[in-house]
Parts: sequence; structure tokens; C-alpha cells
Amino acid sequence: MKKLINAVDDVIKEQLQGMAAAHPELRVNIDPHYVVRADAPVQGKVALVSGGGSGHEPMHGGFVGEGMLDGACPGEVFTSPTPDQIYECAKAVNSGAGVLLIVKNYTGDVLNFETAVEMAHAEGINIQSILIDDDVAVKDSLYTAGRRGVGGTVLAEKIAGGAAAAGYDLARCADLCRKVNQYARSMGMALTSCTVPAAGRPTFELGDDEIELGIGIHGEPGIERTKLKPVDEIVETMAAAIIDDGAYTRTVREWDNDDGVWVEKTLTDEPFKAGDQVIAFVNSMGGTPVSELYAVYRKLAEVCAARGLTIVRNLIGPYITSLEMQGCSITLLKADDEILKCWDAPVKTPGLRWGM
Amino acid sequence: MKKLINAVDDVIKEQLQGMAAAHPELRVNIDPHYVVRADAPVQGKVALVSGGGSGHEPMHGGFVGEGMLDGACPGEVFTSPTPDQIYECAKAVNSGAGVLLIVKNYTGDVLNFETAVEMAHAEGINIQSILIDDDVAVKDSLYTAGRRGVGGTVLAEKIAGGAAAAGYDLARCADLCRKVNQYARSMGMALTSCTVPAAGRPTFELGDDEIELGIGIHGEPGIERTKLKPVDEIVETMAAAIIDDGAYTRTVREWDNDDGVWVEKTLTDEPFKAGDQVIAFVNSMGGTPVSELYAVYRKLAEVCAARGLTIVRNLIGPYITSLEMQGCSITLLKADDEILKCWDAPVKTPGLRWGM
Repeated sequence: MKKLINAVDDVIKEQLQGMAAAHPELRVNIDPHYVVRADAPVQGKVALVSGGGSGHEPMHGGFVGEGMLDGACPGEVFTSPTPDQIYECAKAVNSGAGVLLIVKNYTGDVLNFETAVEMAHAEGINIQSILIDDDVAVKDSLYTAGRRGVGGTVLAEKIAGGAAAAGYDLARCADLCRKVNQYARSMGMALTSCTVPAAGRPTFELGDDEIELGIGIHGEPGIERTKLKPVDEIVETMAAAIIDDGAYTRTVREWDNDDGVWVEKTLTDEPFKAGDQVIAFVNSMGGTPVSELYAVYRKLAEVCAARGLTIVRNLIGPYITSLEMQGCSITLLKADDEILKCWDAPVKTPGLRWGM
Repeated sequence: MKKLINAVDDVIKEQLQGMAAAHPELRVNIDPHYVVRADAPVQGKVALVSGGGSGHEPMHGGFVGEGMLDGACPGEVFTSPTPDQIYECAKAVNSGAGVLLIVKNYTGDVLNFETAVEMAHAEGINIQSILIDDDVAVKDSLYTAGRRGVGGTVLAEKIAGGAAAAGYDLARCADLCRKVNQYARSMGMALTSCTVPAAGRPTFELGDDEIELGIGIHGEPGIERTKLKPVDEIVETMAAAIIDDGAYTRTVREWDNDDGVWVEKTLTDEPFKAGDQVIAFVNSMGGTPVSELYAVYRKLAEVCAARGLTIVRNLIGPYITSLEMQGCSITLLKADDEILKCWDAPVKTPGLRWGM
């Protein structure tokens, strides 16, 4: 295992210390691990918190800042943060206007974020959580019941962040975040595995001429292991899976602040249709350079045009990674006026910045 | 070789087509290859042009835009652009206020940019070129007489770009760019090799437990091949080489527009000293994720503090890459008020953006 690290046990702590040194506009708490805006809590503003296993940087800690997250709780690599950790982070950013948790759909994350919701509620914090489950590749995979939360999370954090900065209240932030998830679909692929520091060896084996389509962000199996193909063929397969995805239905649990109970909601995503405007997000898994992402985008733009989808914004780069894995993911998000307005709003974080 | 590409011969063209599709604010010319601001030439503004072999993205094409470059000429992977290509690009961005070429010190680049200068001069274009040679690792390496141009190039492009946007004339832009080069020092290291598409196999061999200190951005040999070490030791070695570098002297050729001749200048860099303010740039070679760069930054900040250097700005991420090579480089730039003002100025490019 070759990485720029010291002792395996110190990896996350030292990366967070580096982040703290580089970004005085953030406050990094080491025990438990969380990252918040240095000016948190921001009076009158709904606070957004996300988190999950480390190894996906810049997500989530790199998205803390003006116009995006108020706080992020990184677990160990590919390991959920603890309920205490999430609760402490939520408490640190709550101004009284409420806290929205953005949770990727992995069983451990869901459990721990739900416990944190109950802890925060018991302390009188208005809290809601929205589940992100945008990965069309597989259902009920390793670590997950239902679909996995992937690239749509980055878009949800930016858009909900823009809304919170614009003064949306907690319920409206949650509604918008839920809508973004329902409008977003993603799929990933890997050229290589990645190596979790504590494991010291690749998470999975992939032949010298093989790729994995539909890979998860922790190296979970995808839908097809195949011989290496030209990028155009790979993108056609991924884009078709996203664009042709049907009316996906699932039941999620959301917290009712008034009654202090979980309520079940059945949500059905509307398929893409010709004439839709979309935000196109081409993401590096960490080890693939941006030059190759442009080859992906080239074909994606062709496919979208042929299918009647108009790309009105794009994001291209390493934003939700799997350590040094080589590969990419594609996310398409149907973009209405509200989503576009919140997307275009200024943002100033280590990982995403424009307008300030 | 596993990459997200189609035919090897089409790699650069298709990546540029993807860039064109993603960024309507740029104009991409396919034959010869160059990327310019869509609104070029910008009346009254000095135009900045850089270029070099492809494979270092986002440098240089990703730095074309408001507040940075007006144009970039990408050669084939790790291959200099041709004089014609550079000349055509310079002509496309020249508003009459003159063109500054920012040239990394590689023998092929220097020759071809010099020829382009003479071609542009013959057409009546006011033109100057500044050489970047900031790599303290080695002198007279493969492809280079003198020191190589590396991370300082990114900083020079941003700072000269801020100056040009602020209305500096050609001579002042050139003076500032030369100063940035004289104030900047860099060193790189590799955990892995990279694979040039046309070669189809790794540029060099590195054992499973080996790293190369002082690596060049084309995989040129460095100063030491050693066993893998903790990141803190690696950073100490690199930072010491940069901070302790002496008064480097070389003779460069610069173009005299009035007389239409090359003149030789002997330039001596001033060493860093305690009390200096610096911009610290921690760069990924392409395959190393940002999480590991934060571990590098953590130690770099410690070393700088211990040596009396105050880091006043930082840049952390993949900005001057070597395809999918794993590793990093460190650049320190002594920052005076003029440099800081131009660094902080707004920039809007695919690869670097703030303030707009």
C-alpha cells in the first residue's frame, strides 16, 4: 500500500488537522471528529449537516462553508460516523432555526443518523433528515437496503445550501432536498480498486483488462464486470441506465418534529423525459484525472442531446471519491427554476466555490 | 493500459471537444489545437498565453478564462506544441495590447515558443515570453537544460492573469511574471508512474515499496529513489530542499520587442528567509486524492512555522498533473503585496475559480 500517510490509525485525524491548518474559515473538532463553519451557529439560518465514512473527499468536510454545509461528521474510512458524533455536530451548528441532516442511504449511516435525530430532538433541537438514494445501478447491495446514495448527494448539499442561505425554513429546505434526490440519478464505474488504509490491500480484485460497471463508492459490486471498452461505449451504457430508469418507488422514514415520531413516506421518482433541463455531473472516483472526465462529458453531452435532455449546468471533477480508485460516475439532475437558482447561488467551501 | 479513452490518436481532440461542450465561455480550436476565451481578444488588455504538452490538466487549458489565461496551446501528451500552433493562438487573443507567453523550461517548449515569438513579431504583434524554471530537484535533466518548470507555472498564470485584468501593460505583466518565477520554488515526488496513451505502458518502473523524490511532471528521474516513507518524512525532505535552496543563477533569453532581437539576462533568485510570507501550493500529480494532500499540508504548515515562514494563502488540489500518476508536489512562493493582490483578484476558469 502506497499512500501519503503516517500511521494507519492517525490517517483521518491528521487529514483533519491539515484541513484545519489550511482553512481557518472552518473549525475542526478532533474528538469526536467533525468540521463546522468557524462562524457557526449562523443566527436565523437553517443548519445543514452531512457525514458518512471518510475516503470520499472533498465530500463532506470539503463542502462545509458559506452557501453549502454548516457541518460534516467524517467516520473512519468507509465507516459510518457514530450517533454521538452526529449529535455533537448538529448541536454545534444549531442556531435555533433547525438542522437538516443529509444522509446517504447506507444501512450504518441510516441507523446512526436516525439515533442522532432522536438525541437532538430530546434536546429540543428542531431536526429533519433526508435520505439520498440516487444510484440506479443496484438495489439492496452490500451495506445498503434499497438504492445507494452517491453523486446526487453533492448536488443536494449545494442546492439545499443555497436554499438555507436564502432564508428557507427547515421544512422548505427538507422539501427541496427531497426533490433533488427524486430528480437525481447516478451510476459509477471503476477501472481499478482502491485500498482502505486499515486493510492495506485492494478492496476488490479487477483484472488488468477488466472494469466494473455500477460500482459503489466503497467498492461494492456493480452490475457487470466486463472487458475494458472505449469510453464512448461505457458512457452510453451508464447514460442509458440513468435516462431510462423508471418510476423508482421506495418507502423512507422521515422524522416528525411535532409529534416526535418517525413517519413512513412512499416516494416515487419521475423518469426523465425529452425536454427536461438537467445538471450534468461527471465525477472522478479519485484516481482518474480531469482530462479523462472531459472525454466522458463529450459523449454524455451527445447522448443527452440525442435524448432531448438539455444540459444547462455541469460539474466536472473529483467531488465524491473512493480514495484513489480510478473510474468515474455520472449524475443527471432534472433542474427546475428553484433548483437552478439554488445551484447558481454563491458558495465558498474548500471543495466547491463560485460567486465569492 | 486502462483509461477512459477511445482511440489513442483521438485522445487530445476528444478531451478538447468535451471541454468545448462543457464550457461555452471558451472557444476551442481543433486544427491546430488551442483554447481561448470566447470573448477574445479582450480590447485593451494584455493577453496571456501558455501551453505545453497535454497530460497536465487542468493546466493549461483549464486556466483559460477571466482573470487568468487568454489562451492555451496543448501539444500531444507530454509533447511541446508547435510554433504554428502557439503563433495562431497568440494571434487569436491579441487585442493590440500585446501578448505575454508563459513558458515552462523544457527544451522543446523553449525552442517552439521562441520560434512563435519571432513569427508573431514579424506580424507586428508586441510579444514577450517569460520562462518558468522553479523545480529545485534537479538541473539539466531529461528534456531540460537548467531547472524544470513545474508548480510555479500555475501561480504565475494566476498572478499575471490578475495583473493583466487590472490593466498592467505588457512590460509590467512580464516583470511580475518573472518575479513570481524568481520567488517560487517547487519539488515533486511520485508513488507510481503514469502511462502515456501512445506508449501504452508505464513511463518508468517503480517497485511496490518504492517512491521517487524530485520526479518531473513527465516522469523524468528525480534525485532519489527510496523506500516508501511516512508522509511527514517525505514532506520534511521536500520542504527542506525548497526552503534551503540557495541563490540559483541562470541566464535566460528574453525578446526585445523594440529591436527585434533576443537578449540574454542573468537572473539570480533570492533564497527564502525567516519572516517571509508565502503562498503554499500542495498539488496532486493526478492520481492522489485530496485527502492525502491534507496530510502533506499538515506537515508543510508545521515546517514552515518552524522555519519562520508565514503561509498567507494556500492552494490544495490537482492543478498541474502527470496523467494518473500518484504523488504530489509542493510549491512555495514568497508573496509580497503586489503578488497577493493579484492572487486574490477574481478568477473564473474551469480549473480555478473564486470571486466570480
